[in-house]
Amino acid sequence: MSLEEIVKQIQPVRTEWEEKAREHTARLAIPPRALGRLHDIAERICGIFETLEPDVAAKAFLVMAGDHGVASDGVSAFPQEVTGEMVKNFLRGGAGINVLARQVGAEVQVVDMGIIPDMDPGPSQGRNRFHMCKVGRGTNNIARGPAMSRSQAEQSVLQGFRLASELFSAGIRLLGTGDMGIGNTTPSSALGAALTGATVNQIVGRGTGIDEKTLENKRKIVRQALDINRPDPKDGLDALAKVGGFEIGGIAGCILAGAWHRRPVVIDGFISTAGALVAHSLCPASVEYVFAGHCSQEAGHRRMLEHLGLEPILDLRMRLGEGTGAALAMGVIEGAVRVFREVLTFEDAGVTKQ
Amino acid sequence: MSLEEIVKQIQPVRTEWEEKAREHTARLAIPPRALGRLHDIAERICGIFETLEPDVAAKAFLVMAGDHGVASDGVSAFPQEVTGEMVKNFLRGGAGINVLARQVGAEVQVVDMGIIPDMDPGPSQGRNRFHMCKVGRGTNNIARGPAMSRSQAEQSVLQGFRLASELFSAGIRLLGTGDMGIGNTTPSSALGAALTGATVNQIVGRGTGIDEKTLENKRKIVRQALDINRPDPKDGLDALAKVGGFEIGGIAGCILAGAWHRRPVVIDGFISTAGALVAHSLCPASVEYVFAGHCSQEAGHRRMLEHLGLEPILDLRMRLGEGTGAALAMGVIEGAVRVFREVLTFEDAGVTKQ
Repeated sequence: MSLEEIVKQIQPVRTEWEEKAREHTARLAIPPRALGRLHDIAERICGIFETLEPDVAAKAFLVMAGDHGVASDGVSAFPQEVTGEMVKNFLRGGAGINVLARQVGAEVQVVDMGIIPDMDPGPSQGRNRFHMCKVGRGTNNIARGPAMSRSQAEQSVLQGFRLASELFSAGIRLLGTGDMGIGNTTPSSALGAALTGATVNQIVGRGTGIDEKTLENKRKIVRQALDINRPDPKDGLDALAKVGGFEIGGIAGCILAGAWHRRPVVIDGFISTAGALVAHSLCPASVEYVFAGHCSQEAGHRRMLEHLGLEPILDLRMRLGEGTGAALAMGVIEGAVRVFREVLTFEDAGVTKQ
Repeated sequence: MSLEEIVKQIQPVRTEWEEKAREHTARLAIPPRALGRLHDIAERICGIFETLEPDVAAKAFLVMAGDHGVASDGVSAFPQEVTGEMVKNFLRGGAGINVLARQVGAEVQVVDMGIIPDMDPGPSQGRNRFHMCKVGRGTNNIARGPAMSRSQAEQSVLQGFRLASELFSAGIRLLGTGDMGIGNTTPSSALGAALTGATVNQIVGRGTGIDEKTLENKRKIVRQALDINRPDPKDGLDALAKVGGFEIGGIAGCILAGAWHRRPVVIDGFISTAGALVAHSLCPASVEYVFAGHCSQEAGHRRMLEHLGLEPILDLRMRLGEGTGAALAMGVIEGAVRVFREVLTFEDAGVTKQ
């Protein structure tokens, strides 16, 4: 299927099931809307699945990894080889996302969307599956020219779509997105500025923890990337090709897959939201299937979420990525769904109504 | 043990173990403090248990129920008999707290601290244990005089202390507090105003969902309760006796028990925080063992948390009580502890440090 066909087939969430769900919420032995966002979340889940008996027990993460040419311009606190080292750590089960995904019962699949080294995942990776989907061996430096060709951008989105579709077809009912890529807050910032219209100063932050001088350099690099490449603010694929990254395209593909299969997708922080901006640009309705797991501490994240009309579930001053914020939020989403299904009604509980 | 002896034996959390825990966090293959509050939470847990291998898997809730004389003055959207009906619903496992506690693997114990009806929990209540600890049959109307005697106030705190102590002695390592009591945002508001120094208008909110006119009446009632009873702002027990409630005293006792046994206690929303204000007034150090599960939508809650120096973990516009916000927050706390224990160090993961 082409990207064009995918986008054409995506439909908004039908309000009819959300309305039925709201009526059910009103019957629960709970004062009107007293569980606040839990009700909103559960009703959107009902709308997405078109049922009053939603089930999100089967959960998975796609952690998208990619390298970035711009890392050579000193925009990160960590050297580029850490991308590959962390991918190995994911496969060993020793990273933050592995721990938090285990807690909520989600499997973790790791995707080489375009890292520099070749991974040998070895014969026994246990529950942590590896997918080799290299669209390139790291992007080009966006401060000098486009990150990738338009065809590579499309390919990265389609790979993400394919992998997420496989998971949904295998029964996954709640998908989380994660990322790994040294330097990737820089292309994400460029996408954020290009696609929301915010200024570079509003969007660029300290990533994994750079000092003031490196931050000033990072702002300069992002401005330069936007000046040289002139990404089209109305064309997410053009922006992705010019100032994006392979893993960001993969995440955009996951989001389109959620909307196409009518399955909820929980995005993580800054990088995943850059992916959501690309998906939104290609297909605004796709974001109706998205839950924003948390608000990252990264400067421009809230602004990007506002552009998408998404309210984050958690705000715990996290800025790790990997999918960690989405994993914690899955606990809240599952709680919301269970409340919807398992709390007794006023009638069944024998409780006097207001 | 007398309340005086309990308070005298409570010690602050020792900073030594928190410092050791911070050193361990710095070795994890995570950029410096990139999981934000998860690190802070895990380190406080280490400080409380005095170990670098903390374990909070065994969890329980004490849901404290009480009736309130002031309910007859039209301060709530629900009639008073709902207190007893909801207690039955808790024992049947059909309420919000049952559902969310199940999700995080916490048992629920329900306590009659002073409701009007007598409960017959029946022979087979399964996992939802019932404790009969009636300090009175509903409080007196605080708009006319004191809620209870000073001796009853002490008794309610000691009952909470005893029940929580039994749970800790039986191996519970994370205790959540919950409440049920039609009208109980009114005494909680009076305690909030009395013990924080905030004005009645800053503290009083809509509870389970009262209209503007009822809200104005509720403000008037709280002012009247404070004027008639003149609770001593320096004496939590006096304030509890004059404008509090039996379940609020029970919650204060749970918090003192956490501090005495060196075990963390997760408080829920507005009512639990009123209990924490009483505990804090009796013993300021006790609050060092407390985590604020969430920020309630109830008007004065944030102000009360600020007075205690507590930052809420979640903010999901909830205002149900029962312990529901604390239950969801337990998922975050357990995640924080798991990250601390299970994420590999830079060295073990073979990841290059900054």
